[in-house]
Amino acid sequence: MTSTISFLSDFGLQDEFVGVVHGVIAKLAPESRVIDVSHNIPRGDTRAGALAMMRAIQYLPEGVALVVVDPGVGSERKALALETPWGFFVGPDNGVLSPAVALAGGASKIVSIENPEARIPSPGETFHGRDVFAPAAALLASGEASIEELGPELSGDDVTPMLLPLPEVEDGVASGQCWWVDGFGNVETNVGPEELTAVGAKLGDEVSVSIGAKTHRLRWVSSYAEAPEGEVLLHVDSAGLIALAVNRGSAAKELRLAPGVNVKFSS
Amino acid sequence: MTSTISFLSDFGLQDEFVGVVHGVIAKLAPESRVIDVSHNIPRGDTRAGALAMMRAIQYLPEGVALVVVDPGVGSERKALALETPWGFFVGPDNGVLSPAVALAGGASKIVSIENPEARIPSPGETFHGRDVFAPAAALLASGEASIEELGPELSGDDVTPMLLPLPEVEDGVASGQCWWVDGFGNVETNVGPEELTAVGAKLGDEVSVSIGAKTHRLRWVSSYAEAPEGEVLLHVDSAGLIALAVNRGSAAKELRLAPGVNVKFSS
Amino acid sequence: MTSTISFLSDFGLQDEFVGVVHGVIAKLAPESRVIDVSHNIPRGDTRAGALAMMRAIQYLPEGVALVVVDPGVGSERKALALETPWGFFVGPDNGVLSPAVALAGGASKIVSIENPEARIPSPGETFHGRDVFAPAAALLASGEASIEELGPELSGDDVTPMLLPLPEVEDGVASGQCWWVDGFGNVETNVGPEELTAVGAKLGDEVSVSIGAKTHRLRWVSSYAEAPEGEVLLHVDSAGLIALAVNRGSAAKELRLAPGVNVKFSS
Repeated sequence: MTSTISFLSDFGLQDEFVGVVHGVIAKLAPESRVIDVSHNIPRGDTRAGALAMMRAIQYLPEGVALVVVDPGVGSERKALALETPWGFFVGPDNGVLSPAVALAGGASKIVSIENPEARIPSPGETFHGRDVFAPAAALLASGEASIEELGPELSGDDVTPMLLPLPEVEDGVASGQCWWVDGFGNVETNVGPEELTAVGAKLGDEVSVSIGAKTHRLRWVSSYAEAPEGEVLLHVDSAGLIALAVNRGSAAKELRLAPGVNVKFSS
Repeated sequence: MTSTISFLSDFGLQDEFVGVVHGVIAKLAPESRVIDVSHNIPRGDTRAGALAMMRAIQYLPEGVALVVVDPGVGSERKALALETPWGFFVGPDNGVLSPAVALAGGASKIVSIENPEARIPSPGETFHGRDVFAPAAALLASGEASIEELGPELSGDDVTPMLLPLPEVEDGVASGQCWWVDGFGNVETNVGPEELTAVGAKLGDEVSVSIGAKTHRLRWVSSYAEAPEGEVLLHVDSAGLIALAVNRGSAAKELRLAPGVNVKFSS
Repeated sequence: MTSTISFLSDFGLQDEFVGVVHGVIAKLAPESRVIDVSHNIPRGDTRAGALAMMRAIQYLPEGVALVVVDPGVGSERKALALETPWGFFVGPDNGVLSPAVALAGGASKIVSIENPEARIPSPGETFHGRDVFAPAAALLASGEASIEELGPELSGDDVTPMLLPLPEVEDGVASGQCWWVDGFGNVETNVGPEELTAVGAKLGDEVSVSIGAKTHRLRWVSSYAEAPEGEVLLHVDSAGLIALAVNRGSAAKELRLAPGVNVKFSS
């Protein structure tokens, strides 16, 4: 049986790139189902791609994850296929796969995709999504190739990690950063409810939230709907992290937040 | 046999929300086909979502309609599943389902989705598309659950209606409003050709069209192509309603129209 | 067995147009797989649509190509179905199909889709994607109709060609134009590496590139990654054509390029 391929990229939907990758997959693995996880990762933003895949992975059917955020295409960076308890991951060796692979149980086997028979000959070195990664994903999904057949094995030490900032709790302050602004303007931080609890806050409290030189007092509620429209609030979002949000509004606009901005919480 | 799920939302395509819902469906109903009706409904605009679903429903294969435009997520608003002659409708109780349900023949059974076994446990209350509606749609599509198993039955009176403005004809004037501007700039009104006929206009005529303080004389033609490029015209659009359009141009830009603007027609 | 339908349009993803076409196909050909090649072709830009389909066709599984960029919808322009060695092409008679049909081996049979039984009755003449082209594509994909059943046969001379500019080499200058700017800002020209070779340039050289009154000296490299970030470079792109690009940047922004701008190369 052919596995499902879950496909995430920064290709955007303006051009035919995503469609062409679907075409390559359909030719090599006609029975495969392809789920478009997202193709609007900010271009070349491997961290944003890694975070999106990390949030999504537990909801995707076991099978093959095809992740192409690849600003180094055509350079010496390797093309990877990894085997995990969840299934296979295919993508460039720049860290974009790493957090989801870890969540999926870690890699029991890693190869560098180098077998020329597993790639589509191409005039240029700019579209490995089409020429290298899609064929590898399709061959793994259909079982036409084993991971070993794609290329030589690598050790985990050969693979580029993705360093994600961890929140810190010290002297009654939980320090973290914004790491995702969604299309609704909700701002997810890397701080979890356990860190807020550690600094003495609890659901229902007002919490001090410092961003740059400004400190806001925001209520920690259990859903948007508990706050009046327009109020900036804190809540645990759908990924289990503390997020700033505005009921029927945009916290990102309201507080001028973007990924990477530091945030400190205290009670 | 698994039914097709037709999925409409205001999630946008920037984030992985749509992909995650596809993942949940694929896990619970691996044989299901999912049609993405649209995911770019203006955020939180339940009326726009209801109108899009109303226009689409007759062209969608019978099965399950999953409609998630849900500004009240996390509030007391109910999560609904409805049975109709067309199939099942799943979505929030805010009116977004109502017009399409009516077109589909009306609901013979309505339940409030409350069965905890039919939902995905989640840390937050912000993504019912993933945690409540997608599982319900998948279970109904695959036949794994009957609608009765999803939760307690409601009567039609318990369900939030969607009040759509009706056109009026009085003293030789047909009054209505713009209710959809498509991506080409075509402006659909809620006025049908029968109202224009009632005020004495007929295909081929120039018709007086009043918007705010301005009155335009526009030709009622049978297709864009009958007017020279740049001319604003009236025609019956693909949903059978009177629309303002410009051959190879945007009527919305030309006349500064947006959903909700009032329009009056007379001959 | 039902063929795959590869669907390209300028419908955009704001409205439910694409979803409705999928619905029509799913109703008429329930077993069909549909690949969305792209739906963000600039509206009404038949040349851009033709070029995208030309780039994509070799990567799409043989079957049916449904191409709807149709600024003349509702006019006298014909609706075409063509048979080629690759499979069937369905779309308006405005040249948008022609380059891909030629690449696919040329048309052995061409018909004008006129059979009223093969179309969906509609109140308006604005959405032939839904009412004419989708049903024809679905019937051909499922084998429910032969191409002859769709309407009367045409000769190749009856079909509108797409005139694509060819590059010229004269007096040591290769003259061409930009014909695609992708979402990353890469600028593809209609000039191939053989033209650069003909004017004495070779991989690794600096090449003179004249755009308007300005001449740039750009290196011809084999991939983005060979140039430092920010440098404008020349390379052979994924379609085998000479493109201007910036490693992790946008050549289109850097040099203010858009489709149609003339470019001259000399060594």
